[in-house]
Amino acid sequence: MSAAIALSERSRGRTAPNPNVGCIIVRAGCVVGRGWTQPGGRPHAEAMALAEAGERARGATAYVTLEPCAHRSERGPACAPSLAEAGIARVVAALVDPDPRTAGRGLALLREAGIAVAEGIGADDARRAMAGFFIRRSAGRPFVTLKLATSLDGCIALASGESRWITGPQARAHAHLERARHEAILVGRGTWDVDAPKLDVRLAGLEGRSPMRVVLTSRPHPSGASRLPPSPDGRGKRPAREASGKGEGDVIRIARPEDIAQIPADHLLIEGGAQTATAFLRANLVDRLLLYRAPILIGGGKHALADIGLPDLATAHARWCRIDTRRLGSDTLEVYERAPCSPE
Amino acid sequence: MSAAIALSERSRGRTAPNPNVGCIIVRAGCVVGRGWTQPGGRPHAEAMALAEAGERARGATAYVTLEPCAHRSERGPACAPSLAEAGIARVVAALVDPDPRTAGRGLALLREAGIAVAEGIGADDARRAMAGFFIRRSAGRPFVTLKLATSLDGCIALASGESRWITGPQARAHAHLERARHEAILVGRGTWDVDAPKLDVRLAGLEGRSPMRVVLTSRPHPSGASRLPPSPDGRGKRPAREASGKGEGDVIRIARPEDIAQIPADHLLIEGGAQTATAFLRANLVDRLLLYRAPILIGGGKHALADIGLPDLATAHARWCRIDTRRLGSDTLEVYERAPCSPE
Ligand SMILES: NC(=O)c1ccc[n+]([C@@H]2O[C@H](COP(=O)([O-])OP(=O)(O)OC[C@H]3O[C@@H](n4cnc5c(N)ncnc54)[C@H](OP(=O)(O)O)[C@@H]3O)[C@@H](O)[C@H]2O)c1
Ligand SMILES: NC(=O)c1ccc[n+]([C@@H]2O[C@H](COP(=O)([O-])OP(=O)(O)OC[C@H]3O[C@@H](n4cnc5c(N)ncnc54)[C@H](OP(=O)(O)O)[C@@H]3O)[C@@H](O)[C@H]2O)c1
Repeated sequence: MSAAIALSERSRGRTAPNPNVGCIIVRAGCVVGRGWTQPGGRPHAEAMALAEAGERARGATAYVTLEPCAHRSERGPACAPSLAEAGIARVVAALVDPDPRTAGRGLALLREAGIAVAEGIGADDARRAMAGFFIRRSAGRPFVTLKLATSLDGCIALASGESRWITGPQARAHAHLERARHEAILVGRGTWDVDAPKLDVRLAGLEGRSPMRVVLTSRPHPSGASRLPPSPDGRGKRPAREASGKGEGDVIRIARPEDIAQIPADHLLIEGGAQTATAFLRANLVDRLLLYRAPILIGGGKHALADIGLPDLATAHARWCRIDTRRLGSDTLEVYERAPCSPE
Repeated sequence: MSAAIALSERSRGRTAPNPNVGCIIVRAGCVVGRGWTQPGGRPHAEAMALAEAGERARGATAYVTLEPCAHRSERGPACAPSLAEAGIARVVAALVDPDPRTAGRGLALLREAGIAVAEGIGADDARRAMAGFFIRRSAGRPFVTLKLATSLDGCIALASGESRWITGPQARAHAHLERARHEAILVGRGTWDVDAPKLDVRLAGLEGRSPMRVVLTSRPHPSGASRLPPSPDGRGKRPAREASGKGEGDVIRIARPEDIAQIPADHLLIEGGAQTATAFLRANLVDRLLLYRAPILIGGGKHALADIGLPDLATAHARWCRIDTRRLGSDTLEVYERAPCSPE
């Protein structure tokens, strides 16, 4: 199941509003098929894995991170019947599909076809890998990750504003990889105007995965549209070759943190600045924290956050739990998730 | 040698102005003697290990973290001749003693006695374990550790001043253990007045190891003495039963960070507040950082540091390197040392 979950991560940020599912088909101890939801949502992971397995699917076990779908669509066949037709003997699913068109009917259909079915295996990790899909279903908004890059003493810049660079090249490359795993990326109007950030993915081979850009600003757009043009002097404009696909070249504008519900994305990455990070934390709209920390002290610089509305220390505790730590060059990345969650 | 270094750590903070040495005697693969410098500096580690080994020292190897002394003192015999008399066949020393009375003469004396001698083994770790002794010799001041206990965003308190507790019980117990490893502990006049801290070691069995207390304040003491009485209302006064030994019950006053040279201690722990931490960092007088971090966000609270006089980010980099990380309950302790040092 871990391998299936790892495959599902490949399409995180590329399948909204569909879930990013992973599937592994194993026969006699050998992996004979691997699949993950393809960009845009089709083909499904199971279809891809079955295509690879071919005849070897007969008698094999399929590990899927989400219950195979039971509903036909004009975009492709349903996966539960396909698995049965291919002769799969056993299906191990991490989670039941909350989609009312499936919601247990996929597993029922498999059982009726005489296939052995197990569910709930690796459920926590699978839910984490498909967090955007689940939070969209349960809360009607994207899964929100807040990225902060700070010094040991929690500064994001010197008092002079100098902030290039606090973290090193490995941490910055990792942050670009995280961009590729999100459909949308948001900054505040302040950061937009000052840094004119391209917010694209500058990693070889992943250039096409730059997310759509969102700006938080209370200022209404003159045309009344929900899209902001690039800043007046053309900074922040995405070059033409990158303007295809998700990162359309223009920008979505939202007026309040709560408006993220309207963004056509299941994973939203917030990259700053301090006011914006603070606004999302105040609104209790942050699900995950990415804390990149450099081994430096700044002292008296600009801080990552302003008043997030904490009444007392007791409220601050047990709010976050760390789920991952890694070294990136001389920097450290810590990943925290909204509690309760299973810690590292 | 690692075992000898671990033994030397037992008396860190208790032997100034003597080095805290560790010694292990091994014969035929078995440890037959263990020693570490005793409080006050005598007996030496070698004498203690030889006493334990007795006749089994004959033909054995002695591992010592510092060259055995060659100079007689009225407080006890010299260790190099003692090792030779006991029949030690081989001595492995991590470091040569910088004390001009020994400075290589101990090893020479051993060689003359026909003992095989190796030096330099585990030198970096041994120097770290005896850091106070070495920095006192080279810079004429104690080795300075700055302790900070912060939230993930670098706050030491809420804007309201609430700071009990940011870190949990394991981290606080560890901080008390660190106190026991220092001869002296320093706070700023602000912290002294507000918190009236006892600054003692509240760990079962280590109560007697409370360090002497030092306050940083520019205000001259009325009597002109270098000692401050406990604050007027008697808060901060150490109870009588703890007033024996190092923690004398009264308090040393220094007027500038540079004055730490006068403190009769080789290891000084700085526990705050922000102004004091900032003053020591500005003066470039911090050798080691203990960063206890709780998994909470405070946002808009009080910050650990003010302006430490950093001209630009390039200056901030490569200044600190992490030598240890540990989990303490849900908190993390990271230990940094002044670069260059061998990282974790
Ligand atoms: N080192 C780092 O990690 C990092 C990362 C990002 C940015 N930065 C730096 O941070 C600085 C900008 O930070 P900042 O805190 O001043 O600005 P910011 O958060 O980027 O933007 C502030 C603006 O966002 C809008 N906004 C904030 N909260 C809002 C809310 N609740 N509802 C509606 N709109 C809201 C407002 O725009 P309107 O005024 O248009 O209403 C506000 O003026 C830049 O200098 C940038 O370089 C550093
Ligand atoms: N959460 C934590 O980890 C933690 C730890 C410790 C303290 N605290 C909190 O921090 C607060 C106090 O912090 P603070 O920054 O205001 O005060 P502080 O650093 O404890 O003390 C400030 C005082 O130290 C003296 N001082 C500072 N720099 C000096 C220099 N270069 N030369 C000579 N004297 C110098 C001055 O005393 P004079 O005015 O007498 O000259 C100054 O007023 C307290 O509320 C305490 O509870 C929190």
